Amino acid sequence: MYNRKAWKHVFKLDPAKSLTDEELDQVCQSGTDAIIVGGTDNITLEGVIDLLNHIRRYPIPCVLEVSTADAITPGFDFYGIPVVLNSQEKKWLLDAQHQAIKDYGQLINWSEILTEGYVILNPEAKAYQVTHCKLPDRADVIAYAQMAEQMFRLPILYLEYSGTYGDPELVREVKQILNNTQLVYGGGITTLAQAEQMAQFADTIVVGNSLYENFDEAIATVNVKKD
Amino acid sequence: MYNRKAWKHVFKLDPAKSLTDEELDQVCQSGTDAIIVGGTDNITLEGVIDLLNHIRRYPIPCVLEVSTADAITPGFDFYGIPVVLNSQEKKWLLDAQHQAIKDYGQLINWSEILTEGYVILNPEAKAYQVTHCKLPDRADVIAYAQMAEQMFRLPILYLEYSGTYGDPELVREVKQILNNTQLVYGGGITTLAQAEQMAQFADTIVVGNSLYENFDEAIATVNVKKD
Repeated sequence: MYNRKAWKHVFKLDPAKSLTDEELDQVCQSGTDAIIVGGTDNITLEGVIDLLNHIRRYPIPCVLEVSTADAITPGFDFYGIPVVLNSQEKKWLLDAQHQAIKDYGQLINWSEILTEGYVILNPEAKAYQVTHCKLPDRADVIAYAQMAEQMFRLPILYLEYSGTYGDPELVREVKQILNNTQLVYGGGITTLAQAEQMAQFADTIVVGNSLYENFDEAIATVNVKKD
Repeated sequence: MYNRKAWKHVFKLDPAKSLTDEELDQVCQSGTDAIIVGGTDNITLEGVIDLLNHIRRYPIPCVLEVSTADAITPGFDFYGIPVVLNSQEKKWLLDAQHQAIKDYGQLINWSEILTEGYVILNPEAKAYQVTHCKLPDRADVIAYAQMAEQMFRLPILYLEYSGTYGDPELVREVKQILNNTQLVYGGGITTLAQAEQMAQFADTIVVGNSLYENFDEAIATVNVKKD
């Protein structure tokens, strides 16, 4: 079993977006600690399996972040189940997950499941809009972090700025109140300097979109591990 | 710190209902493992403090089940925070709790907090109606139990039939899938025979309403501990 808490840098690949085979090889050989497969729109089983087959050639931990029950496949090391804490609909907090457990509960290997408490902080993000989020203020986020750690004992709290670079001071504050829950930061990391700034506070930083925008600079963020 | 998992029988006292001082003494000296203070309607700080003052004369663990932030007082051993899994509103799952943590987070001693995953199974119950519950079928309840244990690692799953006697077979099935989460059963236990039946499966049975209906028979349910 991999020690996910020791992951400092993770790449996130979107099954609905394209990289060349050579680029995928580079991602897998970059020295990143793990690869997450996940996205919001147009996630198909075929897209997920294509990525999995490519990644599995390399000895790197691989997480499927589940956004739709239709695109789940065996073969990943972990399955991330998002629970959107600042969604305004119970559906994204519990109901969709409940239905999936009802349908597939017998098949689930719970040791592979990671419940991820998401706080989505960019109102322009597709995930924010799909899940009808409400923008939390600083005190809201702190309280969500306390809930994640203390009430629901979630393995992961994920501050998701999806496409925009977040507030390092807020990430720092959240980290101060977490002990057991792993703090993951994602959003807008395009340069090594940004990666280094967020990695001061978050346990794990995720670099995703920038792979599809400025590939070489995105790959260079792995150097945050050398700090 | 008390070992709540070893509690087999618990009485629940409603701050909005009345027992005589002599009856309260009897409850406290009955040999029950703990006393929960909680209710749904007309819960006032004064009512809670009156009960607390009475109970505190006796060396018995005492839990406040929080239904309104206005009626919280220091002095209890534990504070139960209900999370109504089959409510249709996010409010009763997370938002009310989030607001309380936002307001009082600095004051909370988390070692005293018990997050209780409630499944309310009697559509006639006031708590069911207030929290706009949906009646779960058997597979729903099983899936809620898996979520409670595996996704949210809740300390307690509370099957609440509130005022009606539940389905022992369902309680048995739920118990089979719980390992770390403590299974609490409440609802309609008026006789020792009923207490014994539910105590075969639930870790902890709660006797509440019947104290206000047939006091002597309710007190006799404590004999379930002798089994």
